[in-house]
Amino acid sequence: MKAAVFYGTGDIRVEEVEKPKIKEGHVLVEVKACGICGTDMHIYSGGMGPSAVEPPTILGHEFAGRVVEIGDGVSDIDVGDNVAIDPNIYCGHCHYCRMGKVHLCENLKNIGVILNGGFAEYCLVPQSQAYKLPPNMPYEVGAMVEPLACCLHGTDLAQIKPGDSVVILGGGAIGLIHAQLARLAGASSIIISEPSQGRRQLAERLGFDMLIDPTGCDVKARVETLMRYGADVVIEAAGLAKTARQAFGLVKNGGTVLQFGVVDETAEIQLKPFEIYQKEIKWIGSFINPYTHARALELLAKGRIEVLPLITHRYSLDNMEVGLKPDKRGDRVKAMVII
Amino acid sequence: MKAAVFYGTGDIRVEEVEKPKIKEGHVLVEVKACGICGTDMHIYSGGMGPSAVEPPTILGHEFAGRVVEIGDGVSDIDVGDNVAIDPNIYCGHCHYCRMGKVHLCENLKNIGVILNGGFAEYCLVPQSQAYKLPPNMPYEVGAMVEPLACCLHGTDLAQIKPGDSVVILGGGAIGLIHAQLARLAGASSIIISEPSQGRRQLAERLGFDMLIDPTGCDVKARVETLMRYGADVVIEAAGLAKTARQAFGLVKNGGTVLQFGVVDETAEIQLKPFEIYQKEIKWIGSFINPYTHARALELLAKGRIEVLPLITHRYSLDNMEVGLKPDKRGDRVKAMVII
Amino acid sequence: MKAAVFYGTGDIRVEEVEKPKIKEGHVLVEVKACGICGTDMHIYSGGMGPSAVEPPTILGHEFAGRVVEIGDGVSDIDVGDNVAIDPNIYCGHCHYCRMGKVHLCENLKNIGVILNGGFAEYCLVPQSQAYKLPPNMPYEVGAMVEPLACCLHGTDLAQIKPGDSVVILGGGAIGLIHAQLARLAGASSIIISEPSQGRRQLAERLGFDMLIDPTGCDVKARVETLMRYGADVVIEAAGLAKTARQAFGLVKNGGTVLQFGVVDETAEIQLKPFEIYQKEIKWIGSFINPYTHARALELLAKGRIEVLPLITHRYSLDNMEVGLKPDKRGDRVKAMVII
Amino acid sequence: MKAAVFYGTGDIRVEEVEKPKIKEGHVLVEVKACGICGTDMHIYSGGMGPSAVEPPTILGHEFAGRVVEIGDGVSDIDVGDNVAIDPNIYCGHCHYCRMGKVHLCENLKNIGVILNGGFAEYCLVPQSQAYKLPPNMPYEVGAMVEPLACCLHGTDLAQIKPGDSVVILGGGAIGLIHAQLARLAGASSIIISEPSQGRRQLAERLGFDMLIDPTGCDVKARVETLMRYGADVVIEAAGLAKTARQAFGLVKNGGTVLQFGVVDETAEIQLKPFEIYQKEIKWIGSFINPYTHARALELLAKGRIEVLPLITHRYSLDNMEVGLKPDKRGDRVKAMVII
Ligand SMILES: NC(=O)c1ccc[n+]([C@@H]2O[C@H](COP(=O)([O-])OP(=O)(O)OC[C@H]3O[C@@H](n4cnc5c(N)ncnc54)[C@H](OP(=O)(O)O)[C@@H]3O)[C@@H](O)[C@H]2O)c1
Ligand SMILES: NC(=O)c1ccc[n+]([C@@H]2O[C@H](COP(=O)([O-])OP(=O)(O)OC[C@H]3O[C@@H](n4cnc5c(N)ncnc54)[C@H](OP(=O)(O)O)[C@@H]3O)[C@@H](O)[C@H]2O)c1
Ligand SMILES: NC(=O)c1ccc[n+]([C@@H]2O[C@H](COP(=O)([O-])OP(=O)(O)OC[C@H]3O[C@@H](n4cnc5c(N)ncnc54)[C@H](OP(=O)(O)O)[C@@H]3O)[C@@H](O)[C@H]2O)c1
Ligand SMILES: NC(=O)c1ccc[n+]([C@@H]2O[C@H](COP(=O)([O-])OP(=O)(O)OC[C@H]3O[C@@H](n4cnc5c(N)ncnc54)[C@H](OP(=O)(O)O)[C@@H]3O)[C@@H](O)[C@H]2O)c1
Ligand SMILES: [Zn+2]
Ligand SMILES: [Zn+2]
Ligand SMILES: [Zn+2]
Ligand SMILES: [Zn+2]
Repeated sequence: MKAAVFYGTGDIRVEEVEKPKIKEGHVLVEVKACGICGTDMHIYSGGMGPSAVEPPTILGHEFAGRVVEIGDGVSDIDVGDNVAIDPNIYCGHCHYCRMGKVHLCENLKNIGVILNGGFAEYCLVPQSQAYKLPPNMPYEVGAMVEPLACCLHGTDLAQIKPGDSVVILGGGAIGLIHAQLARLAGASSIIISEPSQGRRQLAERLGFDMLIDPTGCDVKARVETLMRYGADVVIEAAGLAKTARQAFGLVKNGGTVLQFGVVDETAEIQLKPFEIYQKEIKWIGSFINPYTHARALELLAKGRIEVLPLITHRYSLDNMEVGLKPDKRGDRVKAMVII
Repeated sequence: MKAAVFYGTGDIRVEEVEKPKIKEGHVLVEVKACGICGTDMHIYSGGMGPSAVEPPTILGHEFAGRVVEIGDGVSDIDVGDNVAIDPNIYCGHCHYCRMGKVHLCENLKNIGVILNGGFAEYCLVPQSQAYKLPPNMPYEVGAMVEPLACCLHGTDLAQIKPGDSVVILGGGAIGLIHAQLARLAGASSIIISEPSQGRRQLAERLGFDMLIDPTGCDVKARVETLMRYGADVVIEAAGLAKTARQAFGLVKNGGTVLQFGVVDETAEIQLKPFEIYQKEIKWIGSFINPYTHARALELLAKGRIEVLPLITHRYSLDNMEVGLKPDKRGDRVKAMVII
Repeated sequence: MKAAVFYGTGDIRVEEVEKPKIKEGHVLVEVKACGICGTDMHIYSGGMGPSAVEPPTILGHEFAGRVVEIGDGVSDIDVGDNVAIDPNIYCGHCHYCRMGKVHLCENLKNIGVILNGGFAEYCLVPQSQAYKLPPNMPYEVGAMVEPLACCLHGTDLAQIKPGDSVVILGGGAIGLIHAQLARLAGASSIIISEPSQGRRQLAERLGFDMLIDPTGCDVKARVETLMRYGADVVIEAAGLAKTARQAFGLVKNGGTVLQFGVVDETAEIQLKPFEIYQKEIKWIGSFINPYTHARALELLAKGRIEVLPLITHRYSLDNMEVGLKPDKRGDRVKAMVII
Repeated sequence: MKAAVFYGTGDIRVEEVEKPKIKEGHVLVEVKACGICGTDMHIYSGGMGPSAVEPPTILGHEFAGRVVEIGDGVSDIDVGDNVAIDPNIYCGHCHYCRMGKVHLCENLKNIGVILNGGFAEYCLVPQSQAYKLPPNMPYEVGAMVEPLACCLHGTDLAQIKPGDSVVILGGGAIGLIHAQLARLAGASSIIISEPSQGRRQLAERLGFDMLIDPTGCDVKARVETLMRYGADVVIEAAGLAKTARQAFGLVKNGGTVLQFGVVDETAEIQLKPFEIYQKEIKWIGSFINPYTHARALELLAKGRIEVLPLITHRYSLDNMEVGLKPDKRGDRVKAMVII
């Protein structure tokens, strides 16, 4: 089969590799669409040590496709079913797995990082990782289950309630999903702060009207005008140290800052413990997507979250490497590799 | 001033009474709109003992109006402000108040039940009970803050999450608010079971499409067709023993039945403790509206909940007694007394 | 190997069966102690249909032992390790597993019910089900991890807080573990209602001093004397319809009734929906023990829960059948089969 | 009456002032014991601007005494009752009060800071602020209800569960209360890090055996030896920037750092947003004590928390100023002014 194999920093080779053989309890998926995510770009650019990724390996962890073969012991899934993949395989016997905090698994094996992933014509996955798509759901939408499931985990942790005010820092694909989820969870005011005009316009088309350009204004002052006491929840979705710091100036007393963005590993921000205490603030990290794939799929199936408008670029497997180059990003929101 | 005074079962007299005098920490409200709720009808029909209501008294606890006088020590509210009223005054020093469960207050004094209420030209209320309305909010909408705040407390207790499935039993004013709140909290499937065709049509106009007529069908079978595992949350909003019982057949394993409806005090239902255990069901009562008025007002101000379509009947103070007679109900959803 | 094989209602045969063969990802455990639980007695007496148990099968799901062989791919566990077993194997791909509510798994396979269990010299278990015991922990204590884990799940659901008042209905092994857990969770007043004098005396030795004999008194009156407002949490741990009903008369407004006991499948109790609403009561079912084995083991390792005093009877494998006969129960609290 | 009046930084004068006159809804308390807390020392040393405290004023907010007069409308409390005081009076009508987050009240008036407090022979308090003591509870114990209520709020926020591991940074009065609360909430391992040998010995007498001297060792290494994965909850109770920073190195993935200590207002610490995300850490501020006084009193009444051993120094009103001087602190844990 054809696959885009990662050989090391800046080195992707589209080549012929052996098609995986079916195994007990597994299904063989003919990949149809696989999203490119920040993590893929990060790995490609050398941002992750060899401990995590051991090249040569096939990246791609946000994908959907068609089941073409099923192993012994597989029930509920048949050849011909369309499926979305949960790439995170938990060991089931480490300290964290046994506490139900599976996403903190000490032996986490993620498809598309540790195991071969979705930038290929076929991918072999355990049955438990494959979620059946409803009829008529486009593969591209199925490929968005994974990032939506991440955001849903964040929404759950942030405990947004009907009537809450929410600020989203960063209006990329993730920020725009978070904004939709905040609205879905009942937030009555939602501000998105995003420098790119194109992405702000997309936000507007998605129905958001409180949009801030952080480059052109005093964000704190603007938020205070729109939300007298600040926001019940601020979601850091830009992945920058400065927005992480900024969040603490925007949150209401008693409120929550959700650290969703993946900031540079070494970057530090300065915070006052006194403020955390006196304003009774919560700073909460959100990491991947335990137990949220089924609900994410349900939200897409019922049309309660829109992801197609976020997909601005599509690549074939042959030229997918373009999608991994940060400098080529421009006005892209979400890129899909169509296989 | 003119007021509709309750003198005992079936005895309302619209008469001239003394206008209340302003007091320290209080505001005098010129009532503009006051909703008629099931509790008012219940009291009028003799369904509540003299311990709770001591006639002669002025009923009406869902109201909004204009502030015409403020007492000493009142800050934040001025003459001319429009306000919605939280009728429930908590003592602040009983066991429950001190635990933060103020709505279970042992000395609860509710305006419109124990204290004179809103079926009158004027009503005197402590400043803490008056919530400023945003400009342009109709008084009728303001009068709906109280029932919405009740439902919001129920939504909070039921912990509806994005992607959940919800069944509402009863599509009266309360059921239709709950349906909107469930949607607002992210529920992806919402079934309303309601016998009256008129109310089902109203539900449809509000955007709900999974409507069941419980008289014409096997509700459990219909729910199972629409929601394979049953509902994450079932909200009893009909106030009947039979719907309370029915709820347990519709809820998903691990799910929640919210007892929101006020069933006849003596009615009992039969339940199997084995089922509660094995299906790990939660049955949760929801009583009035602690700490939810501000969020309810916010949701109305931002147009996230629609209440005007629910108001199907309007009465003047002079003929408001009609609105209290259960047999005159017909296709009414919500009735307002306009003063 | 020798095993006590269940052949059908009232028919246990201690016989020689084939020793299980090691498999990939599994460990072979030489069973040392296996508790007899209500479920075992229930199955033995014919209380469960053939759908659940398919004889001939080896019962016993509360056990600990020594690892004598490990399969390929097993890490973290070695030959010679002592282990306690989590008998509940979740499928990982059903609706409930995917929501993180694994214990409601549609394909639950429990060792000792569906799969061969601990009333035998050896038992083969997947590595994920085996929890390493700390040095010096007696096997009997290890065999109590499973029931303690069930109770801990109940404690979590009941959300007992420091300073709460708790009533436990039933002072058998489970009630006495719940009482200790309630104390451990900070409850400041704990009442145990238990008819057997012997079990009340055991409760006293465990440090509980608010003991009620329900046969000799008006339980509600006694609880009201000891806890003015009733209990924040009432735990039904007798497994009877009458105690389930009784719980609702003992719970404080705003409080929780935990349905922990396994009441006869067909028994019904009469409850007033009005009371659930007006007192804002929660009735919460608690089913088995998802994600609580590690914490249960930790509590035993640190001596924070005492289980040895609960073990009043010990049987050899050969005469373990006595332990399964309900009529032979007498003053037994917990029985262990020592192998 | 005699009172210790605060006239400004470093200026306390014990003088004769007018005894407060009884008012409607208030009780006059003859103060018997009033604790000295860090806030008092902070104000005395000039650490708080004039906005908060307007001298001349009587400080002291941790006190208990005897009711000698009651105003009109006071129920439940009689002359002769012993009471502990909740010093924090919430306005009831600001944004935060209306959300049930009363402790974040915009118009908070605290007795002993804004209003005259307990370093005097008498203090006038609203009935809602006075909690009746059980017979035989020493006044000194009653004076500890307030700080215990603060810590209990922190325990609630930290959500310590049975079986959790907890690290307390700082073994002063607050740290030693937190350690007891953690044990009460079921923590199975509790480490206290405290430089003073005297306070570590006191911790030992209170039953804690995992004690660290942070000056003499690598705290992180020690914690990792004692708790393999780090602590589920780390409580910062030293009030220092360096311990706040340190906490993040000690917490388990998925765990919580509780910011309880009041660090210097301007001090900043450096944190990595990446770590918050990847380890899914929560940093939670805890501010004063909403709704926790009743439970705190209950825990003291039932002897579940010991506070008498913490009271190492006692002063008369005349020489209480000594207790306010930070440099005179030495081996003091908690100081009481006995009046
Ligand atoms: N927690 C999880 O489990 C999880 C899962 C998936 C992704 N993530 C993380 O979520 C973050 C967002 O992902 P993404 O795919 O949406 O990335 P993205 O497309 O790079 O979006 C980030 C957006 O933030 C904007 N931005 C830059 N500076 C800003 C500022 N000062 N204020 C506000 N916005 C600013 C960027 O605009 P410009 O492009 O114009 O600079 C960009 O539009 C990433 O860090 C990603 O790694 C986390
Ligand atoms: N918990 C609280 O704090 C709180 C606050 C406010 C109200 N409530 C209670 O909430 C309940 C609903 O209030 P509401 O004002 O909406 O009352 P409502 O107008 O009487 O609505 C009840 C609806 O239930 C319908 N119904 C009757 N039988 C039914 C069945 N078998 N299945 C499904 N629906 C059925 C009724 O239809 P028909 O008219 O055709 O019979 C009616 O439309 C009442 O019990 C009220 O007291 C509770
Ligand atoms: N939820 C779960 O996951 C789970 C897990 C394990 C066990 N369980 C269930 O928990 C229950 C208790 O288990 P167990 O092993 O402790 O059973 P047990 O030994 O039979 O204990 C029940 C106790 O309740 C007492 N009792 C009888 N009538 C009573 C009354 N009116 N008021 C108060 N107490 C009364 C019994 O006394 P006498 O013997 O004198 O009648 C007995 O001591 C069982 O139903 C069991 O199936 C549930
Ligand atoms: N959140 C709230 O509502 C609330 C309420 C009350 C109090 N507080 C705060 O809680 C904190 C503790 O109060 P407290 O009365 O117990 O104060 P304290 O008596 O000053 O206790 C602090 C302890 O921390 C010790 N310490 C110093 N350096 C340390 C280090 N590197 N590692 C570990 N411990 C260290 C101190 O030891 P040495 O004396 O030897 O330096 C002292 O024993 C204060 O900041 C106080 O303001 C907060
Ligand atoms: Zn794991
Ligand atoms: Zn009260
Ligand atoms: Zn399953
Ligand atoms: Zn306030």
